[in-house]
Amino acid sequence: MTDYILGIDIGGTNTKYGLVDRKGNVVNEGAFATHAHEKIEIFLKELKKHVLPKLEGKSVKGVGIGAPNANYFDGTIKQAANIVWGDDVPLKKLIEDLLGLPAVLTNDANAAAMGEMKFGGAQGMKNFVVFTLGTGLGSGLVVDGKVVYGHSGFAGEIGHVSVNPDGRYCGCGRRGCLETYVSATGIKKTVFKMMADYTRPSVLRDVSYNAMSAEMITNAAKDHDYIAIKAFEYTGQIFGQKLADTVVHSSPEAIFLFGGLVNAGDYLMDPATYYMEKFMFKPFKKSVKLVPSSLMDRNAAVLGAAALGWEEIDKDKVIA
Amino acid sequence: MTDYILGIDIGGTNTKYGLVDRKGNVVNEGAFATHAHEKIEIFLKELKKHVLPKLEGKSVKGVGIGAPNANYFDGTIKQAANIVWGDDVPLKKLIEDLLGLPAVLTNDANAAAMGEMKFGGAQGMKNFVVFTLGTGLGSGLVVDGKVVYGHSGFAGEIGHVSVNPDGRYCGCGRRGCLETYVSATGIKKTVFKMMADYTRPSVLRDVSYNAMSAEMITNAAKDHDYIAIKAFEYTGQIFGQKLADTVVHSSPEAIFLFGGLVNAGDYLMDPATYYMEKFMFKPFKKSVKLVPSSLMDRNAAVLGAAALGWEEIDKDKVIA
Repeated sequence: MTDYILGIDIGGTNTKYGLVDRKGNVVNEGAFATHAHEKIEIFLKELKKHVLPKLEGKSVKGVGIGAPNANYFDGTIKQAANIVWGDDVPLKKLIEDLLGLPAVLTNDANAAAMGEMKFGGAQGMKNFVVFTLGTGLGSGLVVDGKVVYGHSGFAGEIGHVSVNPDGRYCGCGRRGCLETYVSATGIKKTVFKMMADYTRPSVLRDVSYNAMSAEMITNAAKDHDYIAIKAFEYTGQIFGQKLADTVVHSSPEAIFLFGGLVNAGDYLMDPATYYMEKFMFKPFKKSVKLVPSSLMDRNAAVLGAAALGWEEIDKDKVIA
Repeated sequence: MTDYILGIDIGGTNTKYGLVDRKGNVVNEGAFATHAHEKIEIFLKELKKHVLPKLEGKSVKGVGIGAPNANYFDGTIKQAANIVWGDDVPLKKLIEDLLGLPAVLTNDANAAAMGEMKFGGAQGMKNFVVFTLGTGLGSGLVVDGKVVYGHSGFAGEIGHVSVNPDGRYCGCGRRGCLETYVSATGIKKTVFKMMADYTRPSVLRDVSYNAMSAEMITNAAKDHDYIAIKAFEYTGQIFGQKLADTVVHSSPEAIFLFGGLVNAGDYLMDPATYYMEKFMFKPFKKSVKLVPSSLMDRNAAVLGAAALGWEEIDKDKVIA
């Protein structure tokens, strides 16, 4: 009988789940609305309703959960911007009690890193970094084969290194954090700056701030839209510079990029690679691969959450 | 009979050594000129002459070596700026053959981190960073109780994150690296900038660039010299900002500062702490200790090199 881990990825809008075997095959997938702005009891009720029937007749060894602002050490979610269930929600314990299975929790970017290592392009790698370019910019560091949690459990918040202390206002309360430039939201802000700076016509000039998406900007770039291409160049330049700084910290073998913005392909990868190499400390030049996640076309968030569960089993710790 | 590790710290000017027991007691200490700009055979001959007699009658289990640009993985020194023995010197093997003892090699900042963990203020800590403020700015990262070497063996080169891509020229060939601002050399450059920017009198205006030392700047600051105090503030501001960036990478419990510049005490620590906190990502605020190394008054370089040797014995790897 095949053993499975239940992988759960909790996003601000939707929660995805699936049963993942040791090889990364996913069965009994599904999704439901997170109800992030209601009481957590609603979320738990929905989770039970959707997931419990999918466990029947399966050998499920445990649960791996990825969520924003989740802390691996104490199993809680702290002050997440898009999930308002409370300041310090003991999610690991709540789900363990609900499903009667041992669980492990980490933030979504750490889960992505674990997924890349177990099932993706980082298989066999000991040192790498994953960036998730979504609404914000998440990151997961792997050093010597293990996800870095640090003293606090919150290591890998590279989206909050400073690009410019007088720069764009960030949701974290400071100014000029990397994620205000490099993320779906960041490139949208950059498009608005470019529309102010340049006189060129652009299809994007017909779209309001609230209506604009990273996908529209990507499509415009593919149609040779000057403003969109400039916005990708600007994004890639800032990203590349900061990637070079990340490399001198932990000396990764590769950096994986994940998220919708990565669908822009060379429009993002070319300037990011160019500026990463331009600003790279000499001993690391031409030695770090910058590549899209190989899980882009798969259920990466669920795979990552489940990979975390398998990791715990293999080190015989939380889940046994 | 007490067991010892021979600790050797190779600097651009002098090489220091000593026998270090498990508790960090040092005996048979000594030093000799490195002859860094002559052939390596001269260094090896000097090493043998000074060190071999010190090993007689002692139970020495192995050798720990700290040196600039040393690579832990392959035991070589690569293109060190101040030691011109060649591009790729197999120092670990040369010393093993010379002394007939197993050896392990790493760079001086990694050795300092290991020393802090085994014998200094980081005892019991699992996640911390050590910065060595000397001619340049070295750094050693410890994650989950282990020094981070990364994929290349050269992780922890935080002295080469970018402060300003159009800034001061760096020995590494780029511009605006952190070590061009935060190091003994960096603060000297800053004093010259401050003498240009301000009209205030200063004892430092009587000293040439080549004659000026970090110690003179420290002494001037202690005498309430305006230029010297401004230079420390400028140094501390840039350092503090970048410390906040380091914290979001690896989430250390503490950051230890080592080197002559740290003797300036509050003139450096106050602005560095103030700006680290000012730029700190909220979840880490007031949670990271910034403190001088507790090995400042001891033979820290030799302790660090020896700590590396003890670490290898304890994990039963290179030295057995």
